[in-house]
Amino acid sequence: MIFIKVVVIGGAAMGMGVVAKLKRLDPKVEIVVIQKNDYVSLGACGIPYYIGNKFEDSNMLLARKVSDFEKIGVQVLTNSEVKKIDFDNKKVLVQSLHQASEQSYDKLVIASGGTPIIPEVISQDYLNCFTVNSKEDGEKIQKLRSQVKDIVIIGAGLIGLEVAENLVGNNKVTIIEKGPRPLSNLFDQEFSDLVEDELSKNKVKLIKNNEIKEIICKDKTITEVILLDGTKIKCDLLICSIGVRPNTDFLLDTKLKLTPRGAIVINKNCATNLKDVYAGGDCVQTFGRVYKNEIYSPLATVAWKHAIVVAQNLAGIKSSFAGGLNTAIVKVFELELARTGENLNFLLENKINFKEVFIKDKDHTSYVPGQSDIWVKLVKDENKKTLISSQMAGHNKSILRIHSVISLIWNQTVLNEEIDQIDLPYAPPFSRTKDIINIALSKITQT
Amino acid sequence: MIFIKVVVIGGAAMGMGVVAKLKRLDPKVEIVVIQKNDYVSLGACGIPYYIGNKFEDSNMLLARKVSDFEKIGVQVLTNSEVKKIDFDNKKVLVQSLHQASEQSYDKLVIASGGTPIIPEVISQDYLNCFTVNSKEDGEKIQKLRSQVKDIVIIGAGLIGLEVAENLVGNNKVTIIEKGPRPLSNLFDQEFSDLVEDELSKNKVKLIKNNEIKEIICKDKTITEVILLDGTKIKCDLLICSIGVRPNTDFLLDTKLKLTPRGAIVINKNCATNLKDVYAGGDCVQTFGRVYKNEIYSPLATVAWKHAIVVAQNLAGIKSSFAGGLNTAIVKVFELELARTGENLNFLLENKINFKEVFIKDKDHTSYVPGQSDIWVKLVKDENKKTLISSQMAGHNKSILRIHSVISLIWNQTVLNEEIDQIDLPYAPPFSRTKDIINIALSKITQT
Repeated sequence: MIFIKVVVIGGAAMGMGVVAKLKRLDPKVEIVVIQKNDYVSLGACGIPYYIGNKFEDSNMLLARKVSDFEKIGVQVLTNSEVKKIDFDNKKVLVQSLHQASEQSYDKLVIASGGTPIIPEVISQDYLNCFTVNSKEDGEKIQKLRSQVKDIVIIGAGLIGLEVAENLVGNNKVTIIEKGPRPLSNLFDQEFSDLVEDELSKNKVKLIKNNEIKEIICKDKTITEVILLDGTKIKCDLLICSIGVRPNTDFLLDTKLKLTPRGAIVINKNCATNLKDVYAGGDCVQTFGRVYKNEIYSPLATVAWKHAIVVAQNLAGIKSSFAGGLNTAIVKVFELELARTGENLNFLLENKINFKEVFIKDKDHTSYVPGQSDIWVKLVKDENKKTLISSQMAGHNKSILRIHSVISLIWNQTVLNEEIDQIDLPYAPPFSRTKDIINIALSKITQT
Repeated sequence: MIFIKVVVIGGAAMGMGVVAKLKRLDPKVEIVVIQKNDYVSLGACGIPYYIGNKFEDSNMLLARKVSDFEKIGVQVLTNSEVKKIDFDNKKVLVQSLHQASEQSYDKLVIASGGTPIIPEVISQDYLNCFTVNSKEDGEKIQKLRSQVKDIVIIGAGLIGLEVAENLVGNNKVTIIEKGPRPLSNLFDQEFSDLVEDELSKNKVKLIKNNEIKEIICKDKTITEVILLDGTKIKCDLLICSIGVRPNTDFLLDTKLKLTPRGAIVINKNCATNLKDVYAGGDCVQTFGRVYKNEIYSPLATVAWKHAIVVAQNLAGIKSSFAGGLNTAIVKVFELELARTGENLNFLLENKINFKEVFIKDKDHTSYVPGQSDIWVKLVKDENKKTLISSQMAGHNKSILRIHSVISLIWNQTVLNEEIDQIDLPYAPPFSRTKDIINIALSKITQT
């Protein structure tokens, strides 16, 4: 590889993933990272657990330190933002805390991540309203939680539910969900029902099909929220977790191709439409493995894969993203849920000919203590005779058996008459003699 | 299907599995079961937990009752043994408790199971020496355990270890293992070492490379065992768990083809060499999925598959066994181990060109309580570029992720450059951002 200079915009999982991998592949490459915070490698998924006081030092949210990268010769411009990119002349204009600078590049990596979506009703900066996307957010929520009583969370998605679990303790927590049920993009009704039961059991109030119409505040401090239907809810702390959108405003009106929703368009090599410009993670549009459909999938598991693909391509090793299944797993109090593959909306919109089975069983034998319920759904493509997706719910990590289904979907294994004999493990503390996956595969094959 | 009479020899998992499935497929079929005990459908895997006082009623070991089968029109001859089979005239001579009878059949199913192997040194019936293969064994051990102090277990296999865990409490437990390490047929040295540590941590004494040379007894009650090297061990209760062999002595010197070790030879349809005679479960020789090698695999997971294959073939639905991976999972105190695929001996004996990776990692993020170690080994066939086998150890069911590897081995998925991107689930309580399976797949692909 010829000695080149790589500029990386963004110092989170994707950006620093590229840096770490590229430095291993080619220690001589010159790398400059432009990062808006004074830290890098934030594991934002840990924030709900930090605010839940599962650990004390917020620096544990950082997988690696700036100094770790400086030690291997990487220049990290912290507290810095990209003002402009001159793609023609391969230059990035950077505004740091006290100075502006220009960084020329041979290769550019855009890993600017996602920006939390804020509903319009949150019209200004309040002192007690936060998202769950930065270390600072986490620190502020963690400090406030013991001083407040009524907490309102907007959005019953993965993060909203994790935050609810971690904040409920002595607080009264209410979740406001615009849609008809929790986790509606990821799970079907049967699983949303389980989530609702679990929230109710744990004294978290869920209000569905509703939105905040008005925020009542005093001295920039929210005291109450009023919903569309007029319901008034006391609110000492408002947390907004309705998802993220690509952080690409600085790329509007450039030659870089974006989707209408602002995600950077990349090919399977994570290359953009511009020469020598790569992108990945929460700021790009990527694709689903099974139907090759375009998806926006702001997940850590996609980011690290994009990072490897970009780093390898930069190092001259041809590399492609293999497509995602939008796999997710979440713990909501004692209930655990996992899912993989395209959701029901996709199947309906694309008129996929599909069939499904839904089974409730027990995770292991009755005579070993701790037996609990497990629910499994499998969905198959009736034309291709392959699995499309799966959803599971259970306790004590029994849903890790989604691993087997993921492999079958990943490989688009045809559901022949042998598949329900797959040799899954059995011992009394782990499963019943015939694992629920064997049962589900048998049913879906015969369906 | 024409109205036929099926005689089933053996009323455990395989035999009653055939009966249940066949009655569902064809309610009119006439079935007679010949069973040596006064119960059917024993789940022998539960015995260690019964003797460990995890539950009180030994009838919970029975998946179904005799009366359940009688209700659906099945005749169960309990306390009955086969004295002779006249294959030419399709007749079975049966000795029941107080009478002999002759059962003619159109189709015969042999599901006589396994017989515990007893070392030669156990030359007579002792009052305090048992195996772990019948409900009666379990009941006697359970009664004795609180009256004794020194317990000796022969064999550090799956059952021996489960029994040790369940008996240790107030007792002093010693395991005598003939081989150089525990679980040596199933796991490699690294995993046996973990088992040894776990036993030691839990005050179970393991003596390797040794055997009982002499048994000291008084009035048919064992008081002490003497090992090959002269070591004397006090013994109030001796449990023998060195495995099973096919229970086929009643078939010696008949036309039915057996292997030199006494296992019934079947084809992939579970048909024997004799017309209208099927067999499956612990009394047969079956085959490995990947290399089509002949294996003796006395596992419940094989038995239920053989049962379905036999029942379907009897009902006129062509059905084949798909091959086994000898998958097993076991809990040894807090340590959990799982394995699948052919073992090291097989690879060496058959000169398979293989490579392996062995990784130690953490099961989930550092900041969620309960993080613990996980160990994963993957072995690949260097010529075929597919996985052969895997071994894992961990805690809290983290090893259920062996499900993904099993699917890859089952399908003989080629380890291409995409495989390490398989979209496995991540959330802080369940895994690290990059799952250990992704890491292991990446390493084995590059190895």
